[in-house]
Amino acid sequence: MKSDFRFHHNIRVRFADTDLQGIVFNGNYLTFYDVAWTEYFREIGLTWQEMISSGVDTVLARTTIEFKSPAKFDDVLEVHTRVSKIGNTSMIFDFEIYLEGDERLIGTAQSLYVCVDPKSLQKVRVPDDLRARIAALEGQVLD
Amino acid sequence: MKSDFRFHHNIRVRFADTDLQGIVFNGNYLTFYDVAWTEYFREIGLTWQEMISSGVDTVLARTTIEFKSPAKFDDVLEVHTRVSKIGNTSMIFDFEIYLEGDERLIGTAQSLYVCVDPKSLQKVRVPDDLRARIAALEGQVLD
Amino acid sequence: MKSDFRFHHNIRVRFADTDLQGIVFNGNYLTFYDVAWTEYFREIGLTWQEMISSGVDTVLARTTIEFKSPAKFDDVLEVHTRVSKIGNTSMIFDFEIYLEGDERLIGTAQSLYVCVDPKSLQKVRVPDDLRARIAALEGQVLD
Amino acid sequence: MKSDFRFHHNIRVRFADTDLQGIVFNGNYLTFYDVAWTEYFREIGLTWQEMISSGVDTVLARTTIEFKSPAKFDDVLEVHTRVSKIGNTSMIFDFEIYLEGDERLIGTAQSLYVCVDPKSLQKVRVPDDLRARIAALEGQVLD
Repeated sequence: MKSDFRFHHNIRVRFADTDLQGIVFNGNYLTFYDVAWTEYFREIGLTWQEMISSGVDTVLARTTIEFKSPAKFDDVLEVHTRVSKIGNTSMIFDFEIYLEGDERLIGTAQSLYVCVDPKSLQKVRVPDDLRARIAALEGQVLD
Repeated sequence: MKSDFRFHHNIRVRFADTDLQGIVFNGNYLTFYDVAWTEYFREIGLTWQEMISSGVDTVLARTTIEFKSPAKFDDVLEVHTRVSKIGNTSMIFDFEIYLEGDERLIGTAQSLYVCVDPKSLQKVRVPDDLRARIAALEGQVLD
Repeated sequence: MKSDFRFHHNIRVRFADTDLQGIVFNGNYLTFYDVAWTEYFREIGLTWQEMISSGVDTVLARTTIEFKSPAKFDDVLEVHTRVSKIGNTSMIFDFEIYLEGDERLIGTAQSLYVCVDPKSLQKVRVPDDLRARIAALEGQVLD
Repeated sequence: MKSDFRFHHNIRVRFADTDLQGIVFNGNYLTFYDVAWTEYFREIGLTWQEMISSGVDTVLARTTIEFKSPAKFDDVLEVHTRVSKIGNTSMIFDFEIYLEGDERLIGTAQSLYVCVDPKSLQKVRVPDDLRARIAALEGQVLD
């Protein structure tokens, strides 16, 4: 539920996001989760460009997506986002999408991201600075 | 591996599918799996329109996607597709993407589809005709 | 230039919008213009759903798009939007995209929309209420 | 009409391409034209990668798109493509989309591409080799 999250980012459904069934095409949810993930990093004070500059890129290795209820054109989606676990080289992000001002759950995702060297693409440790920033937002250490 | 599948559909990566990392944007894989799913139904002699006309729609309830290796612009992707289980109202589709003429695994998905009434959206039993068509393609009964 | 417009809507470039050249894929601009068009209607107090309910749909008949300067991931684009002419059954929308807080022109579009009956798809006159709302925003009658 | 063209590429409309009006979303046509453009170069024996390697990139500077008739899910679109003019640094591509096996015109585009140096992005002359290849396909010199 929404109270499990300290951060969310709103996305308004575009005409382009819908399909002939009159609802958001399922393939577009991965993009919504990706946008929220980007905004989560902005919230903790890091841009993707800064991550790359510091020698760490982050790649999506696995995601499980559940589709609970359809969303429609012009709906405002609250994409609630949190980190639920940080391993040596990986982080698990949890997402839940709700309609704005509503408790109806639209969908969920749980995604495993791995930190890699931008050039070699070899796994690298999740940086301490990133761990500290996430702990500050989440209000707990997740290692 | 490819030999686990009796059906695949080829998709050539478009310029539009790539992102600034020079590889296919992760959000586009759900669309690739959706295209292969459509073509699987064509292979067993059913179009989506015919499914709807017969009173059965199919909705994606859950999918787990793994990203194994990046794909690039102009790559031809073989999206290998099979049904691995049919329940009362649901079907599990397995997907594996390989580069054409190569054993390199690009990604996988396992997706749970549920049969519903097109109007009420209530769950309905997977039709016998559909079960028979899938069994014929897969060479085994999956109920 | 920006001062030619009384309305704009901001869109932040998503990772998904970029391509392997590291810039926004050209095909995505039509979606940006479509989003701004939707927001223009919201600004004058009409949603697309209300238009349909009142018996008028609007279809894009022709657009000319110019690509002036590339946009990048995370850029905030100001999509400046105005109606420049209203005919019997059609409206011309002008769009100019600038980087937020910058005079650099990213691109332009001029689009011809035609009012049609939502069922028959036959052309219908641009409603007087719509003409009045546009005139109020633009500060001039455009018939 | 189709007989004005010596090359076309077929694209099947995906579920993802449709919108809540049950037809192809207008923003997706630019991607269809881009795919056909890529395939035109393949037809004359050049891949985009080879163009870049030879020191020439091609950017879309302007396009005019007309929407004539809607396309639907699962339609096969013939994207007819030709070069109609080659200038010093630019080329004009004409596109017409028809339903497969049908004379119904879905849409047209006329697009101006400019040759640039991949690094400096300065305009460069359309290479003689490219002019010769296009003349061979089109059956006429277009300079």
